[in-house]
Amino acid sequence: MTNSFNDNPHRRLNILTGEWILVSPHRTKRPWQGKTEKSATTDLPVYDPSCYLCPTNERMGGEFNPSYEKPYSFVNDFSALLPNVKEESYKNGLLYAESESGICKVVCFSPNHSLTLPLMSVSEIADVISLWQKEYKELGAVDGINHVQIFENKGGIMGCSNPHPHGQIWAQNKIPQEVHKKIGNLQTYWEKHGRSILEDYLEQELQLDERIIVENEHFVALIPYWAVWPYETMILPKRKLAHIGLLSESEKISYAEILKQLTIKYDNIFNTSFPYSAGIHQAPTDGKDHPEWHFHMSFYPPLLRSATVKKFMVGYEMFANPQRDITAEQAAETMKSLSNEHFSQLG
Amino acid sequence: MTNSFNDNPHRRLNILTGEWILVSPHRTKRPWQGKTEKSATTDLPVYDPSCYLCPTNERMGGEFNPSYEKPYSFVNDFSALLPNVKEESYKNGLLYAESESGICKVVCFSPNHSLTLPLMSVSEIADVISLWQKEYKELGAVDGINHVQIFENKGGIMGCSNPHPHGQIWAQNKIPQEVHKKIGNLQTYWEKHGRSILEDYLEQELQLDERIIVENEHFVALIPYWAVWPYETMILPKRKLAHIGLLSESEKISYAEILKQLTIKYDNIFNTSFPYSAGIHQAPTDGKDHPEWHFHMSFYPPLLRSATVKKFMVGYEMFANPQRDITAEQAAETMKSLSNEHFSQLG
Ligand SMILES: O=P(O)(O)O[C@H]1O[C@H](CO)[C@@H](O)[C@H](O)[C@H]1O
Ligand SMILES: O=P(O)(O)O[C@H]1O[C@H](CO)[C@@H](O)[C@H](O)[C@H]1O
Repeated sequence: MTNSFNDNPHRRLNILTGEWILVSPHRTKRPWQGKTEKSATTDLPVYDPSCYLCPTNERMGGEFNPSYEKPYSFVNDFSALLPNVKEESYKNGLLYAESESGICKVVCFSPNHSLTLPLMSVSEIADVISLWQKEYKELGAVDGINHVQIFENKGGIMGCSNPHPHGQIWAQNKIPQEVHKKIGNLQTYWEKHGRSILEDYLEQELQLDERIIVENEHFVALIPYWAVWPYETMILPKRKLAHIGLLSESEKISYAEILKQLTIKYDNIFNTSFPYSAGIHQAPTDGKDHPEWHFHMSFYPPLLRSATVKKFMVGYEMFANPQRDITAEQAAETMKSLSNEHFSQLG
Repeated sequence: MTNSFNDNPHRRLNILTGEWILVSPHRTKRPWQGKTEKSATTDLPVYDPSCYLCPTNERMGGEFNPSYEKPYSFVNDFSALLPNVKEESYKNGLLYAESESGICKVVCFSPNHSLTLPLMSVSEIADVISLWQKEYKELGAVDGINHVQIFENKGGIMGCSNPHPHGQIWAQNKIPQEVHKKIGNLQTYWEKHGRSILEDYLEQELQLDERIIVENEHFVALIPYWAVWPYETMILPKRKLAHIGLLSESEKISYAEILKQLTIKYDNIFNTSFPYSAGIHQAPTDGKDHPEWHFHMSFYPPLLRSATVKKFMVGYEMFANPQRDITAEQAAETMKSLSNEHFSQLG
């Protein structure tokens, strides 16, 4: 039923952003003679004296990291956003600009240079979530900060310049573009139905069971119907929670568990440390109530055919529509069938 | 005046898509320890017996190319869009999809395997434009084709799998996402002012002269105020033309000239064959009049710091806002100051 478009080109609607994507299921047969990427190295030392994120080492800004043992955060030495920028707006004919201020932080997930999320224990991952919660709350409470974007760029191919397990947080005054799109659709649905659109979507996905990859007590990981990247996924809490600050203790553990399970599946697709950008979209920190919000974490991973061949979002994708070759259902099938044990730990 | 944000983080509005981008002019000092790309090879044979785009060679689909001497086009052997797909739409709860049909073509710019646009003569480039015109007209006239996207992916880093100079055309039934955004803003402005927004924008840019790179009799190449990619540019005809089919003979030559000049400037930035995706946005081919349209060609090139270090549009950029470090004005300054002769031909 949901598979009526299994073989033919079609478009699917992203109900959160309101944007369409083009799906070309018949195109996977295309041979590839283009650029290949280096497969990720997995053999790293626990401590690297030249890494500016390892405990006790000097950072690029000249400060020294403490001898941290739990997840550790600090202000980015090369922040793209700066606090207390003078508020100005500029309009000259058809040129429009406005000042922006914010705070950029780096979050080291572990003191251990060699780890990645799938290789960390559930309780170590829960500690990362605790730090995200603290940062979301504290940054969100700063005067003039209305949005807190937590994200991770993993792998050199995703612009990550240091393999030490870490993510970033960019908190800012204005609601960013991508979130702005979602807010509109979340609100419209909430006003019309008195339920969050993601609550209803999740219910439907659980019923259909065609795109679910992992489910545990409080969380679900699935490939959204409108996924753009070949193995794009979304982690959703079953309960409508506007932000991660509202997680109960047992929900936090469930979240950590599903993060571990999902990232293990990723690494197992091509037996490589799978690159991605992941980010958590949650309610703005503008002091208002956001009953329409249902926080979710998305993974945008570029690999398509192997550890070295990625999907390029170029030409047509930039000028017209995002486009994908394998369907969301095929990708879910693949990921579902993979082992729950990390390939490096299988005998 | 337009430089009041020269040193501070700010946001700028793209008047065509209605979307904001984040500019962080202070961030260029950031050191780079991350992934580097291979610099493009420039030493290619005029004819490569293993290239499926060279004249007389066998293509991947089994057909043979003719012994073409002028720009040559054919239906893509691995088309993402297919003609005559059965029209269907699907709605099931929160899942929305619809069939899509279209035609994908490949356009070889030259029989000479070793060339790129900046190395071709003005009259050879004019022949490429003539073929684009023919394709826009013929594909646009096909029943059910409402949009014709002409584009080029140049360089392995941009997903191009063959260095033979070529571009693509994906023509389709529905108006693609990115164009849809622009149509809304072009229309609103037209209805309000009775002029195309790009006519007025161009007038303002010519007056300010802060982002103009090249100007000739009928065309201008500039860095738009809201540019996302470090050296993103836009080529605009001075006369409001809804599509390339309306170019006079002398406008066609002007267009070929500015294409050559601009792509020479690109190669001269880092003395390399500069990768990019370029695309032409023009009026839909839906049979309606489009007085609001002013066709334009945009270049989205990824390189940032050198021939091997690109800008990554990842994490924050995917989840929040596109973000850039150098301002549009700095980029324009750089490109303007570069030689008009291709680096490979300088003594
Ligand atoms: O058709 P090509 O050149 O093999 O493919 C290239 O351009 C297409 C259109 O932008 C993209 O969908 C592909 O990801 C890219 O590799
Ligand atoms: O701050 P980093 O990790 O050096 O930088 C990386 O992430 C940023 C946020 O997504 C991007 O702006 C950069 O292009 C990317 O290289």
